[in-house]
Amino acid sequence: MPRTVIRSVRPWGGPSSDVVLDDAVVREVVPAGEAAAGEVEVAGDDGILVPSFSDVHVHLDSTRLGLPFRPLTAGPTRWDRIMNDRASWRTAEAPVADRATETLRRMIALGATRVRSHAQVDADSKLEKFEGVLAAREAHRDAASVEIVVFPQVGIHLEPGVPELMDEALRAGGDLVGGIDPCEIDRDPRRHLDTVFGLAERHGKGIDLHLHEPGELGLFSMSLLTERVRALGMQGRVSISHAFALGSGLPGVERAIDGLAELDVAVTTIAPGGRLDLPLERMVTAGVRVGLGMDGQRDYWSPWGNADMLERAWMLAYTQGWSRDDLIELGLAVATWGGASVIDGTTPRLTGVGHRPGLAPGDPAELVVLRGETPTSAVMDRLPGRTVIHAGRVVAADGELV
Amino acid sequence: MPRTVIRSVRPWGGPSSDVVLDDAVVREVVPAGEAAAGEVEVAGDDGILVPSFSDVHVHLDSTRLGLPFRPLTAGPTRWDRIMNDRASWRTAEAPVADRATETLRRMIALGATRVRSHAQVDADSKLEKFEGVLAAREAHRDAASVEIVVFPQVGIHLEPGVPELMDEALRAGGDLVGGIDPCEIDRDPRRHLDTVFGLAERHGKGIDLHLHEPGELGLFSMSLLTERVRALGMQGRVSISHAFALGSGLPGVERAIDGLAELDVAVTTIAPGGRLDLPLERMVTAGVRVGLGMDGQRDYWSPWGNADMLERAWMLAYTQGWSRDDLIELGLAVATWGGASVIDGTTPRLTGVGHRPGLAPGDPAELVVLRGETPTSAVMDRLPGRTVIHAGRVVAADGELV
Ligand SMILES: [Zn+2]
Ligand SMILES: [Zn+2]
Repeated sequence: MPRTVIRSVRPWGGPSSDVVLDDAVVREVVPAGEAAAGEVEVAGDDGILVPSFSDVHVHLDSTRLGLPFRPLTAGPTRWDRIMNDRASWRTAEAPVADRATETLRRMIALGATRVRSHAQVDADSKLEKFEGVLAAREAHRDAASVEIVVFPQVGIHLEPGVPELMDEALRAGGDLVGGIDPCEIDRDPRRHLDTVFGLAERHGKGIDLHLHEPGELGLFSMSLLTERVRALGMQGRVSISHAFALGSGLPGVERAIDGLAELDVAVTTIAPGGRLDLPLERMVTAGVRVGLGMDGQRDYWSPWGNADMLERAWMLAYTQGWSRDDLIELGLAVATWGGASVIDGTTPRLTGVGHRPGLAPGDPAELVVLRGETPTSAVMDRLPGRTVIHAGRVVAADGELV
Repeated sequence: MPRTVIRSVRPWGGPSSDVVLDDAVVREVVPAGEAAAGEVEVAGDDGILVPSFSDVHVHLDSTRLGLPFRPLTAGPTRWDRIMNDRASWRTAEAPVADRATETLRRMIALGATRVRSHAQVDADSKLEKFEGVLAAREAHRDAASVEIVVFPQVGIHLEPGVPELMDEALRAGGDLVGGIDPCEIDRDPRRHLDTVFGLAERHGKGIDLHLHEPGELGLFSMSLLTERVRALGMQGRVSISHAFALGSGLPGVERAIDGLAELDVAVTTIAPGGRLDLPLERMVTAGVRVGLGMDGQRDYWSPWGNADMLERAWMLAYTQGWSRDDLIELGLAVATWGGASVIDGTTPRLTGVGHRPGLAPGDPAELVVLRGETPTSAVMDRLPGRTVIHAGRVVAADGELV
C-alpha cells in the first residue's frame, strides 16, 4: 500500500491540513504543507474531508437507475408493491447483476465506500437477485466494502422453501439474516423471529430486520426482537431498519430507545418523507448506533433514490427539521461514521452533537473530499467534484471511478 | 409582441408538439412540425412543457444566496430568530436591494416567473427591506411578476409605529397586507387581525398571513381569520401561509379545510421538514387554492433554500410521502399553476389529481421547458437546461437570463 498524502484539505471544515494515509488508515494530520512527500499525492484543493459515506440500507437488487424511466404501476399497500415487483422485475432491460453493478458504481463515485445491501430471496426469484448483488460486490471489490443481507421480502412462512433458500444464501456469501414486519407479513411474529434468530445462530451471522410496523404494533415487534437479543446474547449484532414506530411519539418510545441502547441494537433510517421523523438526536445521545441509507433507487417500488448519499444526508437534515450547523453536521456524521458503526461492530459509535469522528490517526482511510465552505454548506449545496478514498486509495474522482 | 413558436416540446410529457404563443397567451398547440413559422422560434428539444413555477412564499429581503456561507447564530425559538435577524442583517456584505435582485435573478433563471415575496416592515428596518424588494422587482420587471406582502415580522403592536409603516408601504407599492401568528406574537389576536383587515379594507388590498401556530391554537386563529373574511366579504383575497395546524391530524382539521374552501381562502406551503405534512391532496380536492414557496434562502433564519422551485416541488412530493406519478404531477401542478391561482384571483384553481393545467389555448404564456422523460422523472432528476418564458417571451435559458 503506497503512502498517500492528501494535500491541503480541511478535516470537517477545519484548518487546511495534509492528511497522510498508510496501510489503509489515517497515519497523521499536519498543517498544510508540512507532510513529507507521499508515494501518491492527492490534491485536496481546500475541500472538506469527512469519512466516506456509508449506505447502510439499499436494495441493489431492484434498482433501475440509468434505465428508461418507468411510471409506478403498484397499488398503495406494501403487499401490492411486493407483487408489482414480482410481476415486473424479470422484464427489466438489464439483468440484476448489471443493474446492481451500475448503481453501486454510481454510489461509489458519489462517495459511498461502505454499503449494506439487502438482496431479496423468495419463492419466485429464488437466489437470482442475491447472486446479482454478489456479482456487483465482486465487480467493485477494490472500491467498496459491501455487506449483503439475505432478505425475505415476501415473508418467511407464506410460501414454501424460503428458510432453505435463506440458508443457502447464507452459505453462499450472505452476511446477515434479514426479516420483515413479523406481525404484518407472516402474521406470526414468534415463528418469523424464531426462524430469523435460528438462522443467525446456525450461521453465526448478524441480523437486519425491516420494521415498518407503526405505533404500538411496531413497539411490540421491537420488544419481541430485543428479548431474543438478550436471551441469545446477540448484543451488537442486530439492526432494525426503518423502526418507524420510534417516530410515533408514543409513551413507549423512550423505553424502547433505552432498550435498544442497552442491548446495542442499531437502527438504520432512510430519512423517509410523509411521516414523523425519528428522534435522531435523542437516539444518538442515548448511545444507539444509527446509520443512513438510500433504500430503493428508482425501482418497481418508487421513483426515489439517486445513489447520492450526500443528498440523502441533506434530506435527513431536512426531514429532521434541522437548521443549526451542529445538527446538520450530526446528520453528516450519521451518514458517514454512524453507518460505519452499524456495519462494523469495531467502529466506535457517535457520542452526540459536536462529535466529528473518523479523521484521527488510526481511523480507517475511508474518506471523501467534499466541495464547500463549511460542512453545512457542503450538505446544502451537494456539489460535484468529490474525491473518494477506500482502503487508503483514491477510488473515484469527479464522479468517475479511477 | 412577436408570434413565438416553441418547436417540438411535450406538454406535460405528452406527444411532441409545437406551441404557438401570441399576445402573452398560448394561441395553439399542434403536432410537432405543423405550426407555421413564428417570428421567434424556440427549440423545445422534446423537453417537457409545464406552466412556469410560482414561488408564492419567499422572503427576498433576507436572502444571502451567493454570499459567503454564514453559520446559524440564532437560538431555537421564533423570537430568537427574529432578534438574530435584527442583529445581523445590517452587516450583510451587500445591501438588501442587491441581495434580493440576485436571488430573484436565480429564481427566474430556474423557472419561476410568478413570485409573491414578503418584505419585512418593523421598527428597526422601517421601509428599508421593503424598498430593497421593490428594487428587485423593478430590476426584473420584464422577466417576472412579483407581488409584495407588507409583512410585520415582529408583530404589529409590540413596537411603536408599525401600522403607520405598513400603511406607508401599501401606498408605496405593497400588494398585500401581511400578518403573523395573531396569538403568539402580538398575544392579542383580535387586535392583530383587526389591524390587518383594517389596512386591507382601507387600501383595497388582499391579505397573506403567516400562521405557524400549531394544533388547536392555529385552528383557533384560523377561525378568527375566516370569520373576518366572511364578515368583510374578502372571499378569494386572503391567503394563509404555512397553516401548520392543518397538518396536526386533529378532529377540527376537516372542518377547517371545508371552511377555507367555502370562503376561498388560499394556503401556501413551503413543504416543511420535521413536522407532519399538510393533507394536500385532500385540500386541493376540497377546492382550496394551494401554492408552494421557498421561504427564506440561506439567510439569518436557516441555511435552506436555493432558488430552485423544481427542487422544492421534489421536496414537496417527498415530504408528502408520494411515489405515484399522478401525485408527483399534482405536486408539480401545485408548484406551477396552483401558485398562480393563489396569486391571481382569475387563474382557475386545480381540480384535483390528474389535472394538467396551463397549456391550453388562452392560458397565459408563462411556461418552462424541463428536461426529462416524464414529468415525474423531471421532478426526480431536477436537471439544468431549462427554458423559461414570461409573458410570451423567453426570459431565461440554460440557467442564464436572456
Ligand atoms: Zn428496505
Ligand atoms: Zn415566511
